[in-house]
Amino acid sequence: MNLDLLYIAIEDELRKQVRRLAEPITQSFHDMLTYHMGWTGEGAGVEAQGKRIRPLLLLLSTAGCGESWLRALPAAAAVELIHNFSLVHDDIQDGSEKRRGRSTVWAVWGIPNAINVGDALFVLANQAVLDLAKSYPAEVVVQTSTIITNACLDLTRGQFMDMNYAGRGDIDLEVYWALIRGKTGALLAACTHGGALLGGAQEDRREAFRSFGEHLGLAFQAQDDILGIWGNENVTGKSVANDLLDRKLSLPVLYGLSKKGKFAELWQKGPIPPAEIGRAAELLAEDGAHEYAKQQAGELTRRALHALEAARPDGEAGQAMFQLANRLLKREQ
Amino acid sequence: MNLDLLYIAIEDELRKQVRRLAEPITQSFHDMLTYHMGWTGEGAGVEAQGKRIRPLLLLLSTAGCGESWLRALPAAAAVELIHNFSLVHDDIQDGSEKRRGRSTVWAVWGIPNAINVGDALFVLANQAVLDLAKSYPAEVVVQTSTIITNACLDLTRGQFMDMNYAGRGDIDLEVYWALIRGKTGALLAACTHGGALLGGAQEDRREAFRSFGEHLGLAFQAQDDILGIWGNENVTGKSVANDLLDRKLSLPVLYGLSKKGKFAELWQKGPIPPAEIGRAAELLAEDGAHEYAKQQAGELTRRALHALEAARPDGEAGQAMFQLANRLLKREQ
Repeated sequence: MNLDLLYIAIEDELRKQVRRLAEPITQSFHDMLTYHMGWTGEGAGVEAQGKRIRPLLLLLSTAGCGESWLRALPAAAAVELIHNFSLVHDDIQDGSEKRRGRSTVWAVWGIPNAINVGDALFVLANQAVLDLAKSYPAEVVVQTSTIITNACLDLTRGQFMDMNYAGRGDIDLEVYWALIRGKTGALLAACTHGGALLGGAQEDRREAFRSFGEHLGLAFQAQDDILGIWGNENVTGKSVANDLLDRKLSLPVLYGLSKKGKFAELWQKGPIPPAEIGRAAELLAEDGAHEYAKQQAGELTRRALHALEAARPDGEAGQAMFQLANRLLKREQ
Repeated sequence: MNLDLLYIAIEDELRKQVRRLAEPITQSFHDMLTYHMGWTGEGAGVEAQGKRIRPLLLLLSTAGCGESWLRALPAAAAVELIHNFSLVHDDIQDGSEKRRGRSTVWAVWGIPNAINVGDALFVLANQAVLDLAKSYPAEVVVQTSTIITNACLDLTRGQFMDMNYAGRGDIDLEVYWALIRGKTGALLAACTHGGALLGGAQEDRREAFRSFGEHLGLAFQAQDDILGIWGNENVTGKSVANDLLDRKLSLPVLYGLSKKGKFAELWQKGPIPPAEIGRAAELLAEDGAHEYAKQQAGELTRRALHALEAARPDGEAGQAMFQLANRLLKREQ
């Protein structure tokens, strides 16, 4: 399957949806959105646009159920707009000045405008979903909208936990999984679930697609946590052990803290000096956190692939889904 | 018509919608939303809840078309949740520490949480709209959602203009009206428009309802601008001439600036000292701004009432709508 064609169609649909703001009186508002989407301004281009994984998964799910992905394009645009709405607000909430190598929206136009840019991306996502009414019965539009909206509520829940629990030393693994499910799993599940619905799949097949998206998200996140501590800088593009420096309460760290061993002792003393990060990563591994996290990521990967097999995506789209899943889940450490 | 019953039903439906976040793991997130809605925390009570004008207008529009307002309750909750989403984000954007006499969400829980609270209120509004599917055909849900979503895009447009043009001295009256239409007119129009749709009204009657809501909003805003400069503190609860102190680019000020007379001269020197505010208001009136604004507000009020007459709302709900319109539009100066 020629994914390039899908990428072009996704970008085209996204531009069309965002263009609703391209009136003369709100032209510079439109500019803020097109900047964030990676189409205009300094550093614009493919690198700045992100990987568009969510719309791709949605369209492949539709095509994998034997339907044309063309009709599902507005939904693909919707999930990508929601992802980007959450990124714009996230960057304010985290105080991140850079994303994909460029200044974030709030860093360029200030917090008040950035809040409004995020809000507008969310509204445009809602409008994109409603555009499905041009090619699907109203019942299907309502069902798709329900799937996506439920994922959005989970996003805000996950964001709440991230901002209010993640800074505390006493969160447990249960909270970690709820947080990851909200921030990463829910929207990916909505992509494959919604895609299958728009592909005309029956309920049990839709559920298999949904489960694939959710576990893909969880597995990816667990891997990301491992790479954030023991990853190879040259492969991930992140500096090694950044997560320990940032005191991110990732899966291995939470496991390590629960062990109350030497790593926990070091962590509880406060920020770890850069020179001791390597040693901290070793202590954490000695406490079994590396093994545990790899085992969790492996189990989630198995579940994701098992769900994908149960979903039986058809033809070239199906092949492309397995390839994509393998590419996302078998990243180099 | 017993409006008390409507108010109780609105509050009940709002609580039901917000309760989606009331799980143990997000309990304190739920608390932030219920605080903002005026139900919990310091100063909770009717005063803190606001006037619930939007859901009231929506339900009266439905009932005024001869339908039971009960079925339209989720839509009523949706418009109020959207209004409150915009207030929570507005307060961050304006740096307002107080609303309805209480600390704003960001002032209590910080900007990152307040952004997320606004986002969640918006998501809950979307979910409320989808709840209409329990009692309306899917086509009507999609139509209602489209009306409300279009209003939301106008809200973000209006907010953009407010933040980026209102601080400049050179905006003209055309921008003023576009801004007011976005920030105030669009959602009120969606309330009466959506309400009439849910009441089963035909297209021309729906248009009359829509027009009533829009002009009610514009007229109210024009009056608010007059009261903000020449109002009576005891009646409005705002201190006299506050808008001149705040350098708000309201309708009279924009008219005054366009006259390039003595008021414009004073204004362009920079902030007006409190002692000179009374004199500034006099100069502005001498330039004809008070007359102009009163004439504009009067014309918009006439159009609003004319549209309401064309909408022919039935029975007790119709009477209540005329009473409400008169109460909102004939406030004491």
